[in-house]
Amino acid sequence: MTGSGGTLLADRVVEGDPRACARLISLVEDDEPEGRRILRELPGGQALRVGVTGPPGAGKSTVIDGLIRQLRARELKVAVLAVDPSSPFSGGALLGDRIRMQGHARDRGVYIRSMGSRGQLGGLSAATEGACRVLEAAGFGVILIETVGVGQSEMAIRGVADLVVLVMHPESGDGIQALKAGILEVPDLFVVNKADLPGARATRQALVAMLEEAASLGHVMSPEAPDEQVLLVQGEDPEGPQGVQSLVERLLAARDGQRPGRGRDHLALVRALVEARVGRILKQVPPPADLIDPWAAARHWLAAALPHLEDPGRP
Amino acid sequence: MTGSGGTLLADRVVEGDPRACARLISLVEDDEPEGRRILRELPGGQALRVGVTGPPGAGKSTVIDGLIRQLRARELKVAVLAVDPSSPFSGGALLGDRIRMQGHARDRGVYIRSMGSRGQLGGLSAATEGACRVLEAAGFGVILIETVGVGQSEMAIRGVADLVVLVMHPESGDGIQALKAGILEVPDLFVVNKADLPGARATRQALVAMLEEAASLGHVMSPEAPDEQVLLVQGEDPEGPQGVQSLVERLLAARDGQRPGRGRDHLALVRALVEARVGRILKQVPPPADLIDPWAAARHWLAAALPHLEDPGRP
Repeated sequence: MTGSGGTLLADRVVEGDPRACARLISLVEDDEPEGRRILRELPGGQALRVGVTGPPGAGKSTVIDGLIRQLRARELKVAVLAVDPSSPFSGGALLGDRIRMQGHARDRGVYIRSMGSRGQLGGLSAATEGACRVLEAAGFGVILIETVGVGQSEMAIRGVADLVVLVMHPESGDGIQALKAGILEVPDLFVVNKADLPGARATRQALVAMLEEAASLGHVMSPEAPDEQVLLVQGEDPEGPQGVQSLVERLLAARDGQRPGRGRDHLALVRALVEARVGRILKQVPPPADLIDPWAAARHWLAAALPHLEDPGRP
Repeated sequence: MTGSGGTLLADRVVEGDPRACARLISLVEDDEPEGRRILRELPGGQALRVGVTGPPGAGKSTVIDGLIRQLRARELKVAVLAVDPSSPFSGGALLGDRIRMQGHARDRGVYIRSMGSRGQLGGLSAATEGACRVLEAAGFGVILIETVGVGQSEMAIRGVADLVVLVMHPESGDGIQALKAGILEVPDLFVVNKADLPGARATRQALVAMLEEAASLGHVMSPEAPDEQVLLVQGEDPEGPQGVQSLVERLLAARDGQRPGRGRDHLALVRALVEARVGRILKQVPPPADLIDPWAAARHWLAAALPHLEDPGRP
């Protein structure tokens, strides 16, 4: 049916070969037709996909490191996709985080990878969904999808993750302000990290109060009670982080249907894929030379792109 | 030519009537055909458009308040558009900021307004561009466009602003991490607020060093030298903030062409308008019922939307 190279690559992915996973994810990320073709041939798998988000410095990497250890102790294969919203400069920050997780570098049951978006959210969702399917075919049971920052990328994650965990530093007035500024509705679970710090309980209470207020205004996002949505966690406890263990139990309970959850927003993913396709076409069709009237320029550009959008050959 | 209501509204905007501005911006924001029509009839104006961005808690409102005072002292009319990236909950945070600026409520030379995006960046750029044109027609000389957070909205702002200022709290390890995580390339100017705090100079030096490193790697975003890109500012000095004065001078020098600048990214705006148009059509065309294969669903949805995209009647 397909070229033997592609078939071989798919076979090696199914065997769990990390190099094959990396190669196929790169093809998907670069939006290569071959990548999309092999993706369609892969057997379906099912992983619990957990979005892990939060502001810089909140300790996402520490929590993820704890999650990896606990999940590996339960013999689950774990993948981490670190989704980087935009920049050529972010290499530094993410690389630093990666280094902290190097303890897992020789474990074939752990796969860690950064995903770049090149500034386009639709493309990022498409690439992340593709990467998840590759990892599911390779037998990974849990995929942690890490995003940095506050904003649109947190909205986009709902389309690819089964549930979203927001990690916060305690005593973080900034964190609570950020919540107010727009992401209160995204997470299923709030994790206050560094539970040993004095402000942790107060931060938890403030969050629960905000969720209760939101619920009283009719903005009910999660089927969980506000008090059940906020966990205290201590990611860095070397003796075995108690808090992370309770987080793992909550995640696995969600996977097994023992806790209510909102689940993946399939429509959000489809919308992102449409946007990605339009964005891809716009890269192929030169923009109008005259940009002075931006609305007219947009109209002309879209008109020029339409014949390409009609092409049914591209998946 | 047009309904007398529209013509009257346009006339009143040109006279600087704040209620007329508010009404027309609402029509534009709600994407009403009447709003787009009146927008096309407005005489063109030219304001210096300054994006003011930064993480929550950095003191953007204090800096904006200082800018308003200094610009009013120079008899410039100043408008503030507070752009809110996503949420029904953000009312609280932005409202708090607004209250701090209430000293300007009776001054007709100051116009303050929040813009909501309802989760779609393209629509936000379109509405913000429209609002800027309304305010330019009304004779505002400077428009400050405030965005919250870190991420895509900072990329989008380049399409509507002539230059972008990032406000940071000193001693903010988080802030520097956020820069690394993707927005180093967006700002033209970095403003370290609260210059009296001990960490301010060190934060400035760290920023300059990062910009120099980026330049040495060939990532040159601004025509300014790194050392010229970072200002120390003290927004809250009641005696008349020296630092904000130097910021005002830099902004006006950019306006008058006395300093090099990158200017507005017109293509980014046009791309956002195309995305907004596609997003608008997708709201009108029901999504496919079967979302299991998201790529196929995206293809079918786009195919169903194509006839609507071809409609040349909508601007």
